[in-house]
Amino acid sequence: MINQRHLDDLFAFLRFASVSTDATYKSQLDLCADWLITKFSNMGLNAELHPTPGHPIVLARTKTDPAKKTVLIYGHYDVQPVDPLNLWTHPPFEPHLENGIITARGSTDNKGQILSHILGVQETLKLTPELPVNLIFLVEGEEEIGSPNLASFIQTHLTELACDVIVISDTGMVAPQHPTFTYGLRGIAALEIFLQGPDKDLHSGIYGGAVANPITVLTRLIASLHDEQGRIAVPGFYSEVRELQSWERDSWKTLPLNDAELLLLTGSPSLTGEAGYSALERCWARPTAELNGISGGYQGEGTKTVLPSKASAKLTFRLVPDQDPETIIERVCTHLKTSCPTSVHMELKLGHSGKPYLVDPNSPYGLAAQRALSCAFPVNAIALIREGGSIPIVATFKELLGVDTLLLGLALPDCRAHSPNENFPLENFAAGILLNQKLLKELAL
Amino acid sequence: MINQRHLDDLFAFLRFASVSTDATYKSQLDLCADWLITKFSNMGLNAELHPTPGHPIVLARTKTDPAKKTVLIYGHYDVQPVDPLNLWTHPPFEPHLENGIITARGSTDNKGQILSHILGVQETLKLTPELPVNLIFLVEGEEEIGSPNLASFIQTHLTELACDVIVISDTGMVAPQHPTFTYGLRGIAALEIFLQGPDKDLHSGIYGGAVANPITVLTRLIASLHDEQGRIAVPGFYSEVRELQSWERDSWKTLPLNDAELLLLTGSPSLTGEAGYSALERCWARPTAELNGISGGYQGEGTKTVLPSKASAKLTFRLVPDQDPETIIERVCTHLKTSCPTSVHMELKLGHSGKPYLVDPNSPYGLAAQRALSCAFPVNAIALIREGGSIPIVATFKELLGVDTLLLGLALPDCRAHSPNENFPLENFAAGILLNQKLLKELAL
Repeated sequence: MINQRHLDDLFAFLRFASVSTDATYKSQLDLCADWLITKFSNMGLNAELHPTPGHPIVLARTKTDPAKKTVLIYGHYDVQPVDPLNLWTHPPFEPHLENGIITARGSTDNKGQILSHILGVQETLKLTPELPVNLIFLVEGEEEIGSPNLASFIQTHLTELACDVIVISDTGMVAPQHPTFTYGLRGIAALEIFLQGPDKDLHSGIYGGAVANPITVLTRLIASLHDEQGRIAVPGFYSEVRELQSWERDSWKTLPLNDAELLLLTGSPSLTGEAGYSALERCWARPTAELNGISGGYQGEGTKTVLPSKASAKLTFRLVPDQDPETIIERVCTHLKTSCPTSVHMELKLGHSGKPYLVDPNSPYGLAAQRALSCAFPVNAIALIREGGSIPIVATFKELLGVDTLLLGLALPDCRAHSPNENFPLENFAAGILLNQKLLKELAL
Repeated sequence: MINQRHLDDLFAFLRFASVSTDATYKSQLDLCADWLITKFSNMGLNAELHPTPGHPIVLARTKTDPAKKTVLIYGHYDVQPVDPLNLWTHPPFEPHLENGIITARGSTDNKGQILSHILGVQETLKLTPELPVNLIFLVEGEEEIGSPNLASFIQTHLTELACDVIVISDTGMVAPQHPTFTYGLRGIAALEIFLQGPDKDLHSGIYGGAVANPITVLTRLIASLHDEQGRIAVPGFYSEVRELQSWERDSWKTLPLNDAELLLLTGSPSLTGEAGYSALERCWARPTAELNGISGGYQGEGTKTVLPSKASAKLTFRLVPDQDPETIIERVCTHLKTSCPTSVHMELKLGHSGKPYLVDPNSPYGLAAQRALSCAFPVNAIALIREGGSIPIVATFKELLGVDTLLLGLALPDCRAHSPNENFPLENFAAGILLNQKLLKELAL
């Protein structure tokens, strides 16, 4: 199924350094969006570039036949930052193919996956004059920064985006060749804490002991977010958490992804976390308070005996049904404000957020998706899982367009999404192309 | 007293970016040492450059007359790093003179102070053919990194360095024009903590909850160093701490440096610290566990939803009599090792250290120094203080050369040593020159 033209397309797509979080890459995002427009147009789709206050949205569609169902396929062309760059074995934007594995930033998340759908449609259109469904491609450039402009775009384009079901391949498979259907996602809420003590860096000998050290205060605030058992200690944090159902716990125990393998994938000294839950349960169905970064004082070579003026930390909370990001962040901020001593100034900066998601995998569209998955992958049993990551737009789709999303992931557990040496196997790229062809047929029934 | 040639010398001395902690400045340190050699030689002193495995030591001396006492004046030509550079109002190595104040890195710590002694000797030698004492200048380039090569240099040059008393101007005055004699210093012990959890940065959604986040663990370890009352919670930390004597507490209450002024100098929202002690007592006579820097995960613009592989922190402990740096660091390391969970790897890297120092201000040499101080400054009452900073070499001098050190500081409380916009008033530069002239006479008696 994979031919040189498919590979050429993938490599061209991956060469754009479309890092959405960093303004210096803006032109690469624009060029990447233009490349998609050209690709869709060449396939005979009606493609439109929609500028936003941030990065442009690419919309492409077939002609609309009222007799057919309408399927919307969503993906994103933006990628995560690449640092630490020195840990990459090859430059992140020069795709490298070896032993059937493509290494490049965005290869799995999400360029490889969304391109397999695009090429699936391309192949079908070579065989038949028309698709079995009306198709809309919606490919945005701001997923990695929380899709700040997508909801308003949907709201102003409700008619154009009206559809029966949405398909996203931006999730994972439990193991190679195992078809996987993701019926739940964690939500997210981002927060930055900024502390200032003295109005300048001080000599830690001359003044140390008489004024608060903002790093010390920050560490105490962060430490107060968890208790000794690894549970989040913010009052009310768990109030709306829906407990796992017994069929989920039972079914997940049979998956070809166990604790030993998870440990290997993470390269950690050991697994750890909330008592009473397996590692998969902790990742898929329990909320977290995760530190993404911390910074303060002197970080260069050697020692600088400074009592720093400032310290800051970046946090994201992963949320599960039925936690609401706004409510949770409000509780966290209240906890931090209550805990922060008056010896430092604290500023809290709210970041992006998205609601958790949960859907019935055995709805008619869910069953159609399961049939298509069965065809596209060698293993028969379909893994029904939730995922720890967040695709906040899924909840937004449900809210604004009133439709469910089928999450049909093509990422392997060791794809290193968001990490150095992100990679994507060619066999998954091929499976994705086939999956798209089968899926559109099944959804048309 | 200050003439243009003195100013030219100071500016030339300050223009060397002699940052000892950063290897990229090596050549600037060499050039700075060469400049001193030339300066001493031009004054008629016998000057020698002594290379070390790090930065060179400059030694200069008068001819030795066995009938005279020998005074050793110690100083350093290396300076602290300059970051954060953007907070400087003028480039740190382009000295700026305005309203009688010189702003430059090293202006107070220690170039301005050691140069005033050098110029004091130069002026005396213009008036008289010989000094009243045998004089040795010892100026090193590694004070800001803990003088790693000075002790061994002293040990191999015991005869050349034999002296009756040592003088150092690298401490502070309690207020402008107030002569100040420092009879105690805190010691120091530096430590870096490195934690590694996963062997690569992970997606915080996919894996968050199942593995330890090294930042979270680090913050909990650091938080465990203090109790709720701001006392250090490491077992045995206070065991050898000598309590303040009542004359010290009484005398310090009368100093022209009070809590309100300290608060103003630090620019902090409030003063804080160990209960039962004033701010001066906390800084001068109580030990601390201070965070100099912390680092981990993503620190760039925006959000990166990463579960980081690594986190690290730089700490220095300030110690008071009779704490021993080695014993204290051992107790801290034991505490950290006991507290660190097995879900991360911890590496502890010991840094430089120095013992605390305490001397009798009313010894014969102490009284001589007090007489010289009285002459050099307008205010009569001499402030007898301790200091929070560390000059570890003072304890080393006592140990190896068997002599006491007179700490006669010229730095003002707002000199911003180690901070952006470090500065030194011309009037202190002039007072230092006069102090040196009076001091050598008084010590000769």
